[in-house]
Formats: sequence, C-alpha cells, structure tokens
Amino acid sequence: MSDPRPRRIAALVDGLTAAHIDGLLLTGLPNIRYLTGFSGSSALLVISQRDVVLITDFRYQTQVAEEVGDIARIVIEPSSLWTGLWQQLAQMSGLQVLGFETAHILHRDFQRLNEVGSRWQWRPTADLVETLRERKDDTEIALIARAADMATTALSRTLPQVSAGMTELAVAGILERELRNAGSEGFAFPSIVASGPRSALPHAHSSARELASGDFLLMDFGAVVDGYCSDITRTVVVGTASTEHRGVYDIVRVANERGAAGVRAGMSGRDADALARDYIERAGFGPLFGHSLGHGIGLEVHEAPRLARTSEGVLAEGAVVTIEPGVYRPGWGGVRIEDDVVLGADGPRLLTNLNCPNLFPLIP
Amino acid sequence: MSDPRPRRIAALVDGLTAAHIDGLLLTGLPNIRYLTGFSGSSALLVISQRDVVLITDFRYQTQVAEEVGDIARIVIEPSSLWTGLWQQLAQMSGLQVLGFETAHILHRDFQRLNEVGSRWQWRPTADLVETLRERKDDTEIALIARAADMATTALSRTLPQVSAGMTELAVAGILERELRNAGSEGFAFPSIVASGPRSALPHAHSSARELASGDFLLMDFGAVVDGYCSDITRTVVVGTASTEHRGVYDIVRVANERGAAGVRAGMSGRDADALARDYIERAGFGPLFGHSLGHGIGLEVHEAPRLARTSEGVLAEGAVVTIEPGVYRPGWGGVRIEDDVVLGADGPRLLTNLNCPNLFPLIP
Repeated sequence: MSDPRPRRIAALVDGLTAAHIDGLLLTGLPNIRYLTGFSGSSALLVISQRDVVLITDFRYQTQVAEEVGDIARIVIEPSSLWTGLWQQLAQMSGLQVLGFETAHILHRDFQRLNEVGSRWQWRPTADLVETLRERKDDTEIALIARAADMATTALSRTLPQVSAGMTELAVAGILERELRNAGSEGFAFPSIVASGPRSALPHAHSSARELASGDFLLMDFGAVVDGYCSDITRTVVVGTASTEHRGVYDIVRVANERGAAGVRAGMSGRDADALARDYIERAGFGPLFGHSLGHGIGLEVHEAPRLARTSEGVLAEGAVVTIEPGVYRPGWGGVRIEDDVVLGADGPRLLTNLNCPNLFPLIP
Repeated sequence: MSDPRPRRIAALVDGLTAAHIDGLLLTGLPNIRYLTGFSGSSALLVISQRDVVLITDFRYQTQVAEEVGDIARIVIEPSSLWTGLWQQLAQMSGLQVLGFETAHILHRDFQRLNEVGSRWQWRPTADLVETLRERKDDTEIALIARAADMATTALSRTLPQVSAGMTELAVAGILERELRNAGSEGFAFPSIVASGPRSALPHAHSSARELASGDFLLMDFGAVVDGYCSDITRTVVVGTASTEHRGVYDIVRVANERGAAGVRAGMSGRDADALARDYIERAGFGPLFGHSLGHGIGLEVHEAPRLARTSEGVLAEGAVVTIEPGVYRPGWGGVRIEDDVVLGADGPRLLTNLNCPNLFPLIP
C-alpha cells in the first residue's frame, strides 16, 4: 500500500488555495497525525504550497523521526513550541495570510497569533482536514476493522469470566486486560461498565457496585490500532432475564439492526438517525432514547459525521460510523447496543461481528 | 468532613470581585468538577455573586442531580449548551462584565461570546480556579493518597507476574487489571510500558515488543479515586542488571531521593527542579535529562505547579507534586523514577510508598 500522507497533504493544499490562504497552522493533534503520522501529544504543524514543518519538543526527538520521516521538516524546540513557530514562519517565504483551526485552538493561543504573530494575517478555518478524514481509505478501514475485531474478541473472552458478586471495576479490569491481550495499543475512551440501575446512565463511570442477579450489565468500550478506534456496546443480563428485560432489549436490538442494515452513504445524518428512532418511537420508548444514533470513528472516537436529528449533512462514502440506539429507564436500567459500520459503495458493512449477535445474552 | 464546595465557590466569588467582573463563565471541566462535583464530559457553569448555574445535557440528567445536589441550579439543555447559556444569562440580573477562561475555551466558542453573546462584555481570565486547586485540602490529599496506594499495590502485584518474552501490551494488561482490582475508577493517563531501547522514549506508547533479558522495563501509570489522580514511574531490569544499568539507575535514584526529600512549600519551581537536576548534571548526564522534574497532580494529572527550570512561581503549601527525574540514552534505554509528594507545613510527605524503594529492582 502506498504512503497515503503525500496524497492527504496535497488534498489539503488544494483546500488552502480554494480558501484563499497561503498556509495553515494546525493545532489539532488528530489532524496532525493524519497528515504526518506523528502520534505525540505536543506539536504544531505548518503547511503551505512549499513547506511542511512540524514543531515538537525534546520528549519526542526519537519518536518523531521514526514516525514522520521526510514527510515534514522536523524542528525540536527546546523552550516553547510557539517560539519555534515564530522562528520558522519568519524563514518561510510567500506567507501573508495564514489560516488557523478555530475548533482546535484555545483562546489563550489564539491571542498569541494576534500579538506575537501580528505580522501575518490570521483567518479562522473549520473542518479542512476533518472533511478529508471522514472518507476513510482501505488502509484506515482495515485498521478500524482490526480494532473492532479486538473489541469483539475481548468481549467474547470476558463474558465467561463474569459472575454475580463481581464489581463493575473488576469486570472492567477483565475486559481491559483482554483488550490488551488481543493487541490493543490503548483504550478508545474510558470503559463504561454499568450494572443494574446504573445502566440507565448513558455515560456512567465504572463503579464499585457489585453485580446482582436480575441486573442489566452494559459494557461500552473500544480498542485502538495505529491510532484508529473501535467503539462497541453490548448489554447482557446477570442471571435470569425477565419478560421486561427481554421486551426492552428486543426493541433496542431491532432498532440497532434497522440502523446497521439501512444506513447508506449519501443519506443525511438525520435520515440515518430516523432508521432506528422511528422504530423506538413507534414502540412508545422515544422519550427514553435521548441521545443521537451514532457518530463517525477513526483517529478520534467521536468525529464526523453525526447521525442525529439535527444533522442535515450527507454521509460520505467510506465513512465508518457507530449505530448505537438505547433505551434508558431511570432507576430501573438501560440497554444500548452499538456496532461499527463502514459505508461502502455497495451498502453498509458491519465491522463488529460477534458470533451470536442476535442471541439474547445472559450471564449464568 | 464538611462539604468543601461552598467554601471554594465563595473563594472564587472573592476572586471575581478582585478582578472587577460580575460573573464568570467556566468551560474547563476539571474546574467545574472542583466547584460543583459534576464529573460529566459536557457542561457550562456560570458563577456570580448571586447565582451558580450548571448547564448540561440529557445524558447526565440522573448523574448531575446526584453529584451536584443543590450546590448549583441545574439546567438540562436539549439542544446546545450554548443555547441554554444565553437563555440563562438573559434571566440573571446584575451581569454586565463577564469573565471567561482563556485557557479552556476554543476559539470557535470564544466567537460565540462576541456574536450571540455580544450584549455582555467579555474579559479573558486565567488561573482563577487553578490557583485555588493548587492548595489541596485534607480530603483531596486523602483521595490522592488512596490513588497512590492503589498504584503501588498494583505495581507490587504486577511485577511477580512479568517475565521475559511477554509483550509490553501484555504487561500493561496485567498492570491495568491490578489497578482495577485495587479499586481504581480509571487510568490517570494512557499507561506507558516501554522496554529495551523504547525506555529511552520519555513518552512511549506501549507496544507489541517482547521483553528480553537485559532490557530496562519502564512503567509509568496512575490510578484515579473520585477524580483525583496518582502518577508513578518505576524502572526495572529484565534478567541480570549490568554495571551500566546499575550506574544509570543509581544516578536517577539519588536524584529522585534528593528531590523528594528536599522539595518544600515556599520554594520556587526552578529551585525544586534544581534539587535533582544539579546532581544529574554533576554526574555528567545533564543533556540526557531533557524534561522538567515534575508537576502538580489532582483532578488533572498535569496541573499547577510546575517544577521546571523556567518556573519562577512559588510552590504552595498543600500542593501535591511529582518528582520524576530521568536519564534517557537514545538507542540503549532510559530510567525514570517518579514519586508523588505532598508539600506539608512540616516538609514533604511521600505518598507513593513501595515496600523496598531503595532496592535495585530486577525481574528474574
């Protein structure tokens, strides 16, 4: 597979020309990683027609050379990255109007542009790189698919180890170790393991609560491969499922299947959201599904596009999105079932394949 | 222990008066958590002489009521938090000049203040809450001490399970599971497990590299208790340590001990840094210790104060700081030894107590 970075940088430079700016200062780390391969936590990147300059600090001296190679000119700045920026910009020719990333720069740093950087004209830009990132190439899809495989492998190895009386934290420990054993380089986000009434909190932390028979147990987590994330949720029942458990679960399961089977490139985010939401609303649970259906995943676990009632944007071919309907009954419990789907030319393809996706899952 | 939040909010309101602003818009989540107890990932907070208003979204409806109680008026906003903000501000009296957090607001959101929020005057503020957070109270110190105990417990349970041939990822999996079993609600930051030449990368990711005899094995990780972080690093040798291993290790060990024993409230961050740096420089390894000696820990794993050559600020009594000298030889390996220390009135107190801190550690 050829190196995708020159192609990405060229596409961005085309975007600069269209936006009538001579160069772009990038401060968003996932955008910097996408363009250069650098995975460190401290960097500034300048891209123009002539130059690609990456500024980082001592801690990354060895790493940046390995990751970036000759894609960018690398500057190791001993004091502040911003000091290095002004020195580099002063040496670059043909720069008058520079863009910056309005969604990835703090006001504190924006002030520097107006003060120390006042010899250049600064223009806010939005989504120049994010738009490129939305449409994944085959290499990226393969990485997300590996991250999805790690997540399903970890879950299938975790469930047989779980039993009533364990704490949510202990379950998280088993799950995270299985993610590591499956090869995950990290966690896409803090794992959510929420049981009983806590499963009704859509963004619960894992807690010291002990699993009891009759609890829902909701697990929402993801693996990471070369920076690319997966994001999966499964909800099971500890002990014997009641009719009420099964009823709520089946509504969410069918909503998930409708979303995952029906979502298409070219559809609006709102229409995608409706695939699952309409079903939940007809079942009378609409008010208990208070979040949106899904979001893009990639170098970030939340990125473009959004699958939401308020999202008019059209889903790009090659986007990878989550489908995660849920029904949450405060004080009782909640069910969420989340899969990752790539929007191919021929339709959606499920990346989070569990062996028995349609079996109502139980822990004995 | 009495609820510290009213005291914190009162101290902040005093700061607003001193800064000649009628109210403050808070966008920094750790600051919001410190003042209200809310631990969610989506919130805006407005504080004035008369009002404390917290705006969040549906996902946190149950959680915010439990965590915040009647410390703030809670608003659940169905669309955008910013829409909710304008509605709330319009209903509040006595507000003309409002502060915002320059270090915690993106340019994109700063633009909203100037546009939709143009009927108020907006002033950048810095460190109003961070300064309060630097000086920990007894409850906070107890939480960090528990997080430190969890980290040392996890490490002491992990080392006997590690052997040559394991991957760094597998070691991370063991360590993280032991952190969960010790009760950690999460990970203070992505765990660093770096072996052999990779231990010379101060901010390595954990990788699929297999441990070999003669490797340094560096582990840098932390536990979390009620949002409060610990941060510890230990470096061991796989197999038999050479004279060269022992030489570098002992220099870092003595530098760590000098820092941890000598650091005091009232000292500048620069002088604290020098406690360890001077020793490493005299040993001839100064150029291989390229980062600063330490940083504050609390609700964030990196917060005020900084222990660095460039830090003139004075260390506050009650601050909890890391002491983490390192020596990194590219291509060969590196050693870092990091402890957490609280700066008490009577001197420093070590929170990261391992049973045998001075024993040169080996894995058989």
